[in-house]
Amino acid sequence: MRLYLAGPDVFLPNPLARAAALKAICARHGLAGVFPLDDLAGGDPPAWADLPGAYRIARRNEAHIAGCDALVANLTPFRGPSADAGTVFELGFMRALGRPVFGWSNAAASFAARTRAAFSATAHADGTWRDAEGMLMEDFAPLSDNLMIDGAIAASGGVLVTRDLPRTEAWTSLVAFEACIEAAAGRLKG
Amino acid sequence: MRLYLAGPDVFLPNPLARAAALKAICARHGLAGVFPLDDLAGGDPPAWADLPGAYRIARRNEAHIAGCDALVANLTPFRGPSADAGTVFELGFMRALGRPVFGWSNAAASFAARTRAAFSATAHADGTWRDAEGMLMEDFAPLSDNLMIDGAIAASGGVLVTRDLPRTEAWTSLVAFEACIEAAAGRLKG
Repeated sequence: MRLYLAGPDVFLPNPLARAAALKAICARHGLAGVFPLDDLAGGDPPAWADLPGAYRIARRNEAHIAGCDALVANLTPFRGPSADAGTVFELGFMRALGRPVFGWSNAAASFAARTRAAFSATAHADGTWRDAEGMLMEDFAPLSDNLMIDGAIAASGGVLVTRDLPRTEAWTSLVAFEACIEAAAGRLKG
Repeated sequence: MRLYLAGPDVFLPNPLARAAALKAICARHGLAGVFPLDDLAGGDPPAWADLPGAYRIARRNEAHIAGCDALVANLTPFRGPSADAGTVFELGFMRALGRPVFGWSNAAASFAARTRAAFSATAHADGTWRDAEGMLMEDFAPLSDNLMIDGAIAASGGVLVTRDLPRTEAWTSLVAFEACIEAAAGRLKG
């Protein structure tokens, strides 16, 4: 079983070392991890040769996802209360393919709580929380992120594993990741 | 042609008035806009009755997208340099279905510039920009958001329309939206 490892892990100072660590954990559970920076089997199609580099990366990641049996997303909040945008895109992409999607995050507070803490939340008379621009804050605790994310994971039969860690461990701890991989291995082989 | 109107417009103080305004513009261009808060034709399937409310909304939006011919995403930066997470999920979902995806944004600065402005960007000796946690900042100007987003729109044959507006008009101006709908109508009928 091939598992696509979506996440902002590609932005770490040493993404290849991270890739190796994630893949080793997958292998321990009988799964083959596919990292976004991996080459495509057979290389990029010649038709992509004239694309800008960023667009080639996007095509390659889409092809990686299409070639995997499931997706595991690092949903640790990235520069705001939500997960990294690229990761969220990829989660939606795999969900539409009808395959299982899993998530893990090194933050355990709900999306509602994190959003209220990060922005100037005002409680309105109608019971809603809104930001300084008047935009509603989703209030679906204990959801971990936007409802499309938690909803897709649940609907696909996946799991979302969180751990309550200090922010200094956001990009180092792989405890939640390993728990997620263990759960994924159980579901995918079950 | 049915067009799914993804965006944080659902969080506006009066989302139904917004839905009506967006749909009127679509209709002027011969397209039927579908807003996330619309009911499903025939209502929710009985199988969803026991789902938590947030998960029912997620299923409904997925069903709306699957029932549309194309998707138009409001990519105006939402509580950070990227678009709203739910919107990005939905863009990825439609892209995986192989149908055209379009985007519009009331911010014209590149994702690279917006990210550097919003976080403590440090230029490293290797030429990369990194945030305070050491995480790489994508540096693919003039891309408007994470490369998966711009890349998907380009790959699908869509367009991404931006307008350089003051932030106070972020959630009111529909000039970029109408230009995007006009372009979408041309592509979808062409």
